[in-house]
Amino acid sequence: MISEFDLIAHIASLFDTPEGVTLGIGDDGAVLDPGRFDLVTADTLVEGVHFDRSYSSAEDIGWKALATNLSDVAAMGGGPGVFILSLCIPEDEDFEFLQGILQGMKQACDELVPDSFQVSVGGGDVTRIDGPLVISITLLGESSPAGPVLRRGAVPGDRVILLGAVGMSAAGLAILSGEVEVDASDFPSLLKAHRRPMPRVHAGAMLGLHGIPSSLIDISDGLAQDLQHILTSSRVGAAIETHGLPRHPELVALHEATGVDLLPWMLSGGDDYELLMTVPPARMPKLWELARRYQWDVYDIGEVRDRNEGLRLLDPRGELIELEKSGYRHFDGGEPG
Amino acid sequence: MISEFDLIAHIASLFDTPEGVTLGIGDDGAVLDPGRFDLVTADTLVEGVHFDRSYSSAEDIGWKALATNLSDVAAMGGGPGVFILSLCIPEDEDFEFLQGILQGMKQACDELVPDSFQVSVGGGDVTRIDGPLVISITLLGESSPAGPVLRRGAVPGDRVILLGAVGMSAAGLAILSGEVEVDASDFPSLLKAHRRPMPRVHAGAMLGLHGIPSSLIDISDGLAQDLQHILTSSRVGAAIETHGLPRHPELVALHEATGVDLLPWMLSGGDDYELLMTVPPARMPKLWELARRYQWDVYDIGEVRDRNEGLRLLDPRGELIELEKSGYRHFDGGEPG
Repeated sequence: MISEFDLIAHIASLFDTPEGVTLGIGDDGAVLDPGRFDLVTADTLVEGVHFDRSYSSAEDIGWKALATNLSDVAAMGGGPGVFILSLCIPEDEDFEFLQGILQGMKQACDELVPDSFQVSVGGGDVTRIDGPLVISITLLGESSPAGPVLRRGAVPGDRVILLGAVGMSAAGLAILSGEVEVDASDFPSLLKAHRRPMPRVHAGAMLGLHGIPSSLIDISDGLAQDLQHILTSSRVGAAIETHGLPRHPELVALHEATGVDLLPWMLSGGDDYELLMTVPPARMPKLWELARRYQWDVYDIGEVRDRNEGLRLLDPRGELIELEKSGYRHFDGGEPG
Repeated sequence: MISEFDLIAHIASLFDTPEGVTLGIGDDGAVLDPGRFDLVTADTLVEGVHFDRSYSSAEDIGWKALATNLSDVAAMGGGPGVFILSLCIPEDEDFEFLQGILQGMKQACDELVPDSFQVSVGGGDVTRIDGPLVISITLLGESSPAGPVLRRGAVPGDRVILLGAVGMSAAGLAILSGEVEVDASDFPSLLKAHRRPMPRVHAGAMLGLHGIPSSLIDISDGLAQDLQHILTSSRVGAAIETHGLPRHPELVALHEATGVDLLPWMLSGGDDYELLMTVPPARMPKLWELARRYQWDVYDIGEVRDRNEGLRLLDPRGELIELEKSGYRHFDGGEPG
C-alpha cells in the first residue's frame, strides 16, 4: 500500500505551482489569484468504463484524464489553467503505475498546452477505494477577452464546421478490443487516437479570441450527439452532408481490409476530442485565414437550419441517414457543467 | 439503470444557479463571475471507506460529502460558493438513493451556510462505475478581505485554540459499528456527530474577516495529527493540556457505561470538522468577544512552543502522553490542496 503522503509529495515534486496560484498543495485548500479563472469543468475517468489497462499504458491513461478536461475548456473558447486532482486508489495499487499516470498528465501539460497558458496541479484529494481506479479532474480556465463561447448561439444560415477527424478513436478501440480483427500495428494513428487524444487547446483559445464561432462544443459523445447538444441549446436544426466528413487513410484501409461500415464510428463513436462549431457566413473568411495560418484541418460539413427541420444527416445522394440507436454511448455522455 | 440525463435534470431542478455563476449546468463548462472565487478545495467520499449505508441515510451521506468541503473552506478563513459535483454511480444504483444524497447536499446548503454566502452546484460529471459509489466535490470559495488564513503562521507564544468538541464522531462510529456495545438510542449526539457533522462555516469566515488566527485548520484527521500539520507548516512545537479538552456529556456517559478510554478518540478520532487555530495573545480578547457574541464553544488548550519541543500532549499531572500509533487514520488523512 502506497502512503498517501508519499504520493502527494510525488505529485508536488512533479508539478510546479502553476501561474495564477498563490498557494498550491499543502493547506486546506489552494489559493488562486483573484480575477484570473472564470471557467470550470470536470471529467472523471473510471477504470473498466473509460479505460482498460490492457489497451492503454499508465502514461496514456493520465494523458487522457487531463486531455478530456483540456478539451472542455477549449470548447468554451478559453485557455486552461489550474487543475484539481482527485484519485481513488485500489488497496493493492502499484506505486509505479500511479507514477506513470502522473507522468502522462505531466506530458499532456507539456505537449498539449501552448506557451500562452500554463497548466499544473493546484490541489486535490487522494483516497482509497475497494474497487476500480478513479481519476477525477476539475480544471479551471480563463475565457478569452471576448467571453466564453457557448453551445447556444447557433442561428439558421450558420455553417457547421468540424475541426479535426471523427471516428478514429472508436476505430482504435475496436481494434484494441478485438471487435475488428486486424494487425493492430498497421493502424498506429487509430490506436493513438484512442490512447492519446489531441484536444484542440490552441485552436479553442484562438477561436474564442477571434470571436469566430456562434456556438462551440467538443466531440466526446460522437458528432451526431454533440451536434444535437448545440441544436437543442440553440433551438435550431441542421443538415449535415456526411460525405463532407474527412476519412483518414487508416480508416479507409480498415474499411477495405474488413468491410466494416465507418459511418457509425464517425457519427457516434465519440472520444474524438475534436471541435465542432457553427460559424456565421460573414466570419468564414477569417476562419479560413486562421486555419491556413495554424494549419488546422477544418471541414465545412453542413448548415444550420430552422428548428423544425431537426438534425438531418444526408448521404451523397441527399438521402436521409437513419442513425442507429444502438451506437456507442457511454453513460457519462454529457456533463452537468 | 438511471439515465444520466434524468439525473442531471434532477440536479439542475434541485439547485439554483448560484450567485457568482454566469452559466451553470448545461454547457462544456461553467462560467464564473471573474474575481469572485480565490479558494478551491476538493474532498471525495467513497462507499466502504468513508461511509456505510447501514450507518447513514442517503441524506446523511450527501450532507457529509458537502460538509467536509465546507469545513475546508472555513479552515481557510473564507466563505463557500460554487461546487462541482462528480458522481461515479454503480450500474444497479437506486434513483431514490441518489435523490436522497442530493437532498442531503441541498439541506447542507440551506442549513450550514449563513446568509452572507450562497452555495450551489455549478457543474460536474456523472459516470458509471463497476464498484462502489463515489462522490467527489470540488468547492470554490472566497477568502475574506484580510486574505486566506494558512497553516503556516503560528509562532511561539501563540495560544492553541479549539473551536468545538473532538472525539464525538469517532465515538458515534464505534457505536454504529458495534465496536462498543451500548444502546445507540442513548447517544443521539454522538451518532449525529458522525452522520451529520456541523462544519464551522460561519465561524471560519468570521475568524478570517477579523484576522484572529495566526494559523487555522479543520480537524478531519484528528486533533493531534491536524495540529501536527500546523506545527510542521509553521516550523514550531506546542504543548497541549489534554484535560482542557471538552468532554460532551454523552462521551462521559459512554465512558461510564463501558469503561472505554476517551482520549484516543479525542486526539486521533478524526471526522470532527471542528476548527483548530493558533492565536497571538494580543488577539485573544477579540476572540473571546466574538465567541461570546456568536456563542462559540472555544477552548484554550495549550501554547505554541519552539520547534525543538515538538508536540507535547500533557495529562493533568503535566506528564507526557504517548499517542498510540494505532489510532484511527484513514488513507485520505490529508489532501494535496
